[in-house]
Amino acid sequence: MAAISWATLHLKTPTPSLHFRSLPKRHSISTPSLARIRASLIEPDGGKLVELMVNESEKASKLKAAEQLPKIRLSAVDLQWVHVLSEGWASPLRGFMRESEFLQTLHFSSLRLHDGSRVNMSVPIVLALDDAQKTRVGSSSAVALVDDGGDLVAILSDIEIYKHNKEERIARTWGTTAGGLPYAEKAISGAGNWLIGGDLEVVKPIKYNDGLDRFRLSPAQLRQEFERRDADAVFAFQLRNPVHNGHALLMTDTRRRLLDMGYKNPVLLLHPLGGYTKEDDVPLTWRMKQHEKVLEDGVLDPETTVVSIFPSPMHYAGPTEVQWHAKARINAGANFYIVGRDPAGMAHPVEKRDLYDADHGKKVLSMAPGLERLNILPFKVAAYDKTQSKMAFFDPSRAQDFVFISGTKMRSLAKNRESPPDGFMCPGGWQVLVEYYESLAPASNGRLPQPLAA
Amino acid sequence: MAAISWATLHLKTPTPSLHFRSLPKRHSISTPSLARIRASLIEPDGGKLVELMVNESEKASKLKAAEQLPKIRLSAVDLQWVHVLSEGWASPLRGFMRESEFLQTLHFSSLRLHDGSRVNMSVPIVLALDDAQKTRVGSSSAVALVDDGGDLVAILSDIEIYKHNKEERIARTWGTTAGGLPYAEKAISGAGNWLIGGDLEVVKPIKYNDGLDRFRLSPAQLRQEFERRDADAVFAFQLRNPVHNGHALLMTDTRRRLLDMGYKNPVLLLHPLGGYTKEDDVPLTWRMKQHEKVLEDGVLDPETTVVSIFPSPMHYAGPTEVQWHAKARINAGANFYIVGRDPAGMAHPVEKRDLYDADHGKKVLSMAPGLERLNILPFKVAAYDKTQSKMAFFDPSRAQDFVFISGTKMRSLAKNRESPPDGFMCPGGWQVLVEYYESLAPASNGRLPQPLAA
Repeated sequence: MAAISWATLHLKTPTPSLHFRSLPKRHSISTPSLARIRASLIEPDGGKLVELMVNESEKASKLKAAEQLPKIRLSAVDLQWVHVLSEGWASPLRGFMRESEFLQTLHFSSLRLHDGSRVNMSVPIVLALDDAQKTRVGSSSAVALVDDGGDLVAILSDIEIYKHNKEERIARTWGTTAGGLPYAEKAISGAGNWLIGGDLEVVKPIKYNDGLDRFRLSPAQLRQEFERRDADAVFAFQLRNPVHNGHALLMTDTRRRLLDMGYKNPVLLLHPLGGYTKEDDVPLTWRMKQHEKVLEDGVLDPETTVVSIFPSPMHYAGPTEVQWHAKARINAGANFYIVGRDPAGMAHPVEKRDLYDADHGKKVLSMAPGLERLNILPFKVAAYDKTQSKMAFFDPSRAQDFVFISGTKMRSLAKNRESPPDGFMCPGGWQVLVEYYESLAPASNGRLPQPLAA
Repeated sequence: MAAISWATLHLKTPTPSLHFRSLPKRHSISTPSLARIRASLIEPDGGKLVELMVNESEKASKLKAAEQLPKIRLSAVDLQWVHVLSEGWASPLRGFMRESEFLQTLHFSSLRLHDGSRVNMSVPIVLALDDAQKTRVGSSSAVALVDDGGDLVAILSDIEIYKHNKEERIARTWGTTAGGLPYAEKAISGAGNWLIGGDLEVVKPIKYNDGLDRFRLSPAQLRQEFERRDADAVFAFQLRNPVHNGHALLMTDTRRRLLDMGYKNPVLLLHPLGGYTKEDDVPLTWRMKQHEKVLEDGVLDPETTVVSIFPSPMHYAGPTEVQWHAKARINAGANFYIVGRDPAGMAHPVEKRDLYDADHGKKVLSMAPGLERLNILPFKVAAYDKTQSKMAFFDPSRAQDFVFISGTKMRSLAKNRESPPDGFMCPGGWQVLVEYYESLAPASNGRLPQPLAA
């Protein structure tokens, strides 16, 4: 099987061995290797990873059946959710949420299973319909979901259509209804007034053809990789920003702590988010280039690091969303989750303050229903230590020696082609950021244009 | 012990036997009679009813100690919450919420206990401080809570002060941040930017001196009453409106169903909410007069009905609040809870629609963490059946025979001294409503004045 570590990763010249075509078929996960997986990796939510891909042998009949069904065209964000659902990141969810799942998500950040147990589920995974689409669906019990080109992506069956109360959805997910929430503006405000839930069967796997598809490992593939490496602990690090040496310090320190706890082979899942992000975040392709440099520079050890892309879109919903980020990683086999200051947070879109209290994310995560099995590792705060010229854990007894470099500050330095202090980020990684901002030639109106692909 | 049924209730001429001075001291509940109570009544949340009244013997020392503490003056709504907490309606909560309880309430509508189990808790029970009060508290570990007259009500100790993010609190509790939410305007928007949590010890029981205090039975007193009556099922009916014959039909039908299920003596807890209500609701004193007439008329059977006042203020937070209404009744011994259309709902304060979907309350209630032990009895819809000239369960096969009379319609009829159809409400009860609206002589500016006491 192919190694997935960055040791063999070269974005510009893909190595054939990185392709996953040679992987065993997914359903084999649940047969001979299952006992072995369960012995070492955390169980998926609900006990079994839910994969929603149609078997090759059934594809033709599904395509045929879909021809008779009302068609719903999916947006780019909808397709990302189909991707998420199809691979079981949201296990045990079997499709877009029906009303009972939607309500439990909004009210309880969790779903009750038939046996009375609870799994975490904090962000709605829903599909909106407008009035005309609803009329077109009529009394059909299933719909065909198609992509921009009209190709069949999936069938949603045993459907339920219910009201999409956008105000309530936004208020309960974000704790505000202020205008300017990126995901709400992208995917909710303009969406239809109905939601459609049902059982999903995916006929066409979601591919992005951006040169990065081979890094989009499914939870089953990640589990196989962790097994292959004989990992006895998997610690996940979610990120949507370039990696600096403070992050690296934290990840290497976490591994050291896990070894101290007696684990023999803790493996890091470095897991950048690959779905929708807001306009001023660094785009995925550039982040992946930056991460590559960080691995090349030896800041992180490729032997104990798996880099993969998490296909979810970003909500920027702080304490609510961090639960989703953690829960999805359980399904991929992680039993430790690193959580930092203000996870999935952002500035309040209207008021001059952060939208969330910086500590609420880790507090909520540590109390969340359905995440009791997950070990939460709260971030120590790293900052630039002037006396050592490197990133180090902040020592309040000599606060004057430290400089905090925020994401905003980092972006502004890179935009202005200034250098950060020595030791803040490896030079190769920093160069990628500078190149990214250089690629954004300011438009004549002074506003930044849409980012280019790397 | 005194009977609490309405058979002996006369608001204007209180019967001495209705006073509860003769009740055994509360702590005796937890000694000899405990086994018997547990055998028949549902257990309180957390296993034990939390009562926060200081023993008579300790009162003097508490009063002395409080003299040295920073003082916080309580509003009328704050006092209602002290009342709620002191009697254990919110068991196992031991005082105003600390941040971990506040966050769990907002995110999960439930609290995780030390043994890993969950109890429901859907509305924040919190005490706000402004900046000046926070400064005055300084580094004290306890505060004295005083009433309007400056008398010590309670001590809050082992305190924790944390930020009061009002926008987030409102958004997550109501699912909207629209201006005009009655409770938010009354108790949140103008409140301080800090919350103070801690352990509560109540020195002065909350009394209202409105002639109704004898109907304010604590959960322990209600449990004793249900025991005394040998109830083998207790079904609670929360209300904040006058009782009409549709309600009565529902309550008598519920009893019949419980008898059919094999219960020998199901008792109804008719439990009007007694705390803060919005201006256009019928005030408690008038509602109690109206309920008295309904009992006198024999519409409900006093032998199997306990009427008592639930001291909580009203949030009008629909599906979130109905959980609180149900959870509190578990603590009072109810194992069945009747839930109707749009419980705790109201019109959207800004848009022309109901704030909540009429079915969400019962759906959310049936899925709520910590309420699994409670039997939810969804309302059948009652309407006025013109063919029988009485309230009856709606039969969709002959919809044209039924008239729906909303609360708004009922109030408007009473205001205009018109009569409802025969059989809608007993004449004595209706007369109370008409009198109430007559007491509201329109002010010269055309607006309704503050309601008078009955």
